[in-house]
Amino acid sequence: MKRNLKLVLEYDGARFHGWQYQVGVRTVQGVLEEALARLTGEGQRVTAASRTDAGVHALEQVVNFPTACHHSPEVFVRALNALLPRDVAVLSCEEVDPRFNARFRARGKIYRYLVYNNFHRRAFGHFYSWHIPEPLDIEAMRESAKCLLGRHDFSAFQSKSRESAEKDPVREVKRIEINQAGNGYLCFEFEAGSFLKQMVRNMMGTLVLAGRAKIRPEAVAQILESRDRKQAGPTAPAAGLYLVKIFY
Amino acid sequence: MKRNLKLVLEYDGARFHGWQYQVGVRTVQGVLEEALARLTGEGQRVTAASRTDAGVHALEQVVNFPTACHHSPEVFVRALNALLPRDVAVLSCEEVDPRFNARFRARGKIYRYLVYNNFHRRAFGHFYSWHIPEPLDIEAMRESAKCLLGRHDFSAFQSKSRESAEKDPVREVKRIEINQAGNGYLCFEFEAGSFLKQMVRNMMGTLVLAGRAKIRPEAVAQILESRDRKQAGPTAPAAGLYLVKIFY
Repeated sequence: MKRNLKLVLEYDGARFHGWQYQVGVRTVQGVLEEALARLTGEGQRVTAASRTDAGVHALEQVVNFPTACHHSPEVFVRALNALLPRDVAVLSCEEVDPRFNARFRARGKIYRYLVYNNFHRRAFGHFYSWHIPEPLDIEAMRESAKCLLGRHDFSAFQSKSRESAEKDPVREVKRIEINQAGNGYLCFEFEAGSFLKQMVRNMMGTLVLAGRAKIRPEAVAQILESRDRKQAGPTAPAAGLYLVKIFY
Repeated sequence: MKRNLKLVLEYDGARFHGWQYQVGVRTVQGVLEEALARLTGEGQRVTAASRTDAGVHALEQVVNFPTACHHSPEVFVRALNALLPRDVAVLSCEEVDPRFNARFRARGKIYRYLVYNNFHRRAFGHFYSWHIPEPLDIEAMRESAKCLLGRHDFSAFQSKSRESAEKDPVREVKRIEINQAGNGYLCFEFEAGSFLKQMVRNMMGTLVLAGRAKIRPEAVAQILESRDRKQAGPTAPAAGLYLVKIFY
C-alpha cells in the first residue's frame, strides 16, 4: 500500500521555465521529480496545486505524490533539501489521506503581484517585480478592482492561447487588495477559488492601464462584460507574480 | 578638448562575470563600454573605482571616462539607462575635473556583506546573500572584528592567486560593524582606505569561523600577525558582497 505525501515548496522562478515538466528545459517539476527519484528509487510523477508559468515564483506551492518509501516526512524534508538546487526549498512534508489531490482538492488560492513604481529603474529586483516608471493612481486601481470582484465569466482575462481555453470560464474573485509596500513597491493581492490561465497577469495589465489613466475605472466592468480578451490590457510580466497560498 | 565624465552605477552582479572586461563573457565593464560606444560613436575605455569579482553586487560603483561627445550629463543618464541591460542602472552623471580618476583618486570604500543565518534554507536570496545554517555568535564576531581594525599588513587576508599579490599589503581598516537586519539576515559593513583583492571575503570567512566557535576571537589577531593566507578562514561566497560607497 503506497502512502500519499504532501509537500509545501518555495521556489525562485527566475531561472525556471515554469512548473510543468518539459524535456530538455529546467522546470520545477523536473528538478523535484529528479530529486525524488534519487531519494526513493521510484520514478513517480508529482501533482501540483498550480502550474505556474516561466518566471513566476512560489512561496507555498503544494504538491502530492504516492510512494512506497518508508522514510519519515522529516527525512523527506531534509533529504530533498540536500538534493534540490538552491532555488527550490521544501518547507514541510506530511502524510495525508490517500484521496488527497493537491490540484483537485484546492478550494482557494492567493497570488501576489509586486510592482516597482518609480521613475528611475533599479538594477536589482528585475526578476522579482514589474518596473513601471509612470505614476500609478492607487485609488483608480482600487475602484477598477471592485468591478472584478464576485462570480463572473472571466473570458476577457484568460490566456490568448486556444489550447488553454477552459470549457467553463466562470470564476469567483473573493478579494483584490492594493497596498504600498515601501520603497516604491506596490503589492497587489488576489484571492479566488481558482484562476484561469494567466488571469492574474491579465487583470494586472488592465488594472495598470486604469492606474496610468489610459482607461477609466468603469471601463474595467465593460471589458469583463465583453468576454473578449482583445478588450483587456496586456499580460503583465511573469517576474512580478508569486503564488502565495493554497487553501484546502 | 575631451570632457571627463563621472558615472555612478548600480548593478546586480548575479549574471555578470565581474566588473572587468574579458573577451567572450558578460562583464559590467563590457556592457557599459558597449552602451557608451553606441551612444557616442567613440570606443573609449572606462576606469572604475573597484574591480568587483564575479557575482559581487554594487550599489554605487564610480566610473570615469573621457569623451568628445557634447550630450549633457542628464542625456547620458537617460540614454545609457535605455541602452544598458536591466541589471545595470546609471544613477548619476557629472562632468568632473580632467585630473579626476575614479580608481586612483578614491580615498575610501565601504563594502557590505549579507549573511542569511537560519537553520532552514530559503529558495530566494541565494544570489544575494550567504546562507549559514549554524548559529552565529554575534558578540564573538564583533570581538574578532576589533583585532582587524587599524593599520596592518593584511597578507593573511589577501587573494591566494600570486598574480594579484600587492607589493604593499598594508591597509587601514577604519570600521567593521555587525548588525541584525531582520528576518534572519546579518549585515556586516567594512570601511577602509582601500582593500586587497578578496580581502573582505577572506575577513568574512574568518569572522564566521569565530561566530561558529571554530576559532577563538583572539585567534584572529594571531592570523593577522602570521601574514600567512593559509591561517585565515575560507573565502566567503561572492553573492553576499555589495560595493556600497566610494569616497573621494
